[in-house]
Amino acid sequence: MNFEDKLAVKTAETEKILESYLPEETGFAARLAEAMNYSMRAGGKRLRPLFLKEAYLLFGGEEKVCEPFMAAIEMIHTHSLIHDDLPAIDNDDLRRGKPTTHKMYGEALGVLSGDALLNFAYETAMQAFSLSEDTGRIAQALMILAEKTGIHGMLGGQSVDVMNDGKVLSREMLDYIYEHKTSRLIEAPLMIGAVLAGADEKEVKTMERIGYLTGIAFQIEDDILDITSTAEELGKPIHSDEKNHKVTYVTLRGLEGAKEDARSMTDEAMKLLDSLPVRNVFLQELLESLIGRKR
Amino acid sequence: MNFEDKLAVKTAETEKILESYLPEETGFAARLAEAMNYSMRAGGKRLRPLFLKEAYLLFGGEEKVCEPFMAAIEMIHTHSLIHDDLPAIDNDDLRRGKPTTHKMYGEALGVLSGDALLNFAYETAMQAFSLSEDTGRIAQALMILAEKTGIHGMLGGQSVDVMNDGKVLSREMLDYIYEHKTSRLIEAPLMIGAVLAGADEKEVKTMERIGYLTGIAFQIEDDILDITSTAEELGKPIHSDEKNHKVTYVTLRGLEGAKEDARSMTDEAMKLLDSLPVRNVFLQELLESLIGRKR
Repeated sequence: MNFEDKLAVKTAETEKILESYLPEETGFAARLAEAMNYSMRAGGKRLRPLFLKEAYLLFGGEEKVCEPFMAAIEMIHTHSLIHDDLPAIDNDDLRRGKPTTHKMYGEALGVLSGDALLNFAYETAMQAFSLSEDTGRIAQALMILAEKTGIHGMLGGQSVDVMNDGKVLSREMLDYIYEHKTSRLIEAPLMIGAVLAGADEKEVKTMERIGYLTGIAFQIEDDILDITSTAEELGKPIHSDEKNHKVTYVTLRGLEGAKEDARSMTDEAMKLLDSLPVRNVFLQELLESLIGRKR
Repeated sequence: MNFEDKLAVKTAETEKILESYLPEETGFAARLAEAMNYSMRAGGKRLRPLFLKEAYLLFGGEEKVCEPFMAAIEMIHTHSLIHDDLPAIDNDDLRRGKPTTHKMYGEALGVLSGDALLNFAYETAMQAFSLSEDTGRIAQALMILAEKTGIHGMLGGQSVDVMNDGKVLSREMLDYIYEHKTSRLIEAPLMIGAVLAGADEKEVKTMERIGYLTGIAFQIEDDILDITSTAEELGKPIHSDEKNHKVTYVTLRGLEGAKEDARSMTDEAMKLLDSLPVRNVFLQELLESLIGRKR
């Protein structure tokens, strides 16, 4: 099977796992569950749960204990999208061609379904305690999840991004935003997969660095695609950063500099992956596919 | 020392513990930390962390492992207040006489600081793993925290409350809202304190029931005070439920019926507390003080 076919199979498997952890749409709070599930089912590349599973396989993991964490990381990502789209933040009406959650369910449920997904992520991840005796590993995985998501992680980056919208950003601040808003939520699944499979501290650190590099490269690619892609290829409007006077990596480093940085970061990530005593060809291909991606 | 003096001492101790777990206001995300801390420092009775500590003492707990959970439950409560006050939900400008978080920091940080407090609650609670070897108890406490907060707990109740604002409520639905929006976050600290101290399953169930009864009684008292209190005593406008055509427990049961129910629930809670093989006079007094409270 080539990479694309493997990716399709593994994405479908991931979708099935995610679906199995969604809340039931019953009882008085059914509408809240509907709003949560609406956004969870809206599609996407499911990269974060894929990373988590593949990091788990890389270090020889063979149990179902990674699955609640796969669902949890996607719930946290989806939570951030729902709240990003709110009128108080980006005020977006559409995501992936569909009405955003607050457009579909009203603003109050936009707020509450985002809250509920963030909380349900922890509730779901903690189901791992009933799947494995290895409470210590699960505790460590939970701590990584919370730290990478919170004020010192994604939410911190998100707050800095929002507060500096439309302002001229320093390179330092842009790096902070990319590191926190994007990399932290890629570091988390790679580290959690490794931890759950019993990787040692040094290996977990290596996975963290790979996640960091992949996140930044991924974000730089986004900036590049906004300039070089067609709207059709990208599936969303192009030149939106320029129109919004948004300072991006391309603004600060130029198109060629940005391409160069993205490539050198991906190269470093690949070398680090190579340096490990274990192999996962699909994870390598998945990381490689993120550079030079069309969308 | 009489009850009021003991309460003042214990509340001051609780404030100190809460303060020690707040995020530092440094770095690019300092403003987010400020918004989180602003709301955490806005005062309040700190009932939930007090309940947690006293339940822990009741069952003989003697370590610091309960403290991160005390901070966590207050963070979750504060998260819910910040998001309740948002324009998309209750649209309140003032809370406890001070500008609400979104009035002070803008709506985007209103959303994000609420998110960040919810997440930080878990990050904080998980610090317990480094304070005690008893990973199993901490895991159980975390699961209780997540379940009581989420779609099957407070957030579920909040969603039903918001969606039925201004509508005629059935008794069944009002009970659901009170049970979820109020009781779940009182059940949680009582159960968590018990679990961390090593209470057995039956004792934890008893604490859950006490929390349930206390929450409903507390909420009914709120409805009663809105009718019978003066604005001065209550520290907020009275007859607000009537003005907002809000269906309350008093609407459905009448003032006398409501008083009777609140009293019988408190009595049952006190009897359950009495039925335990352990004693905590202060916890008993604290629960008793919730009925007949002026505000």
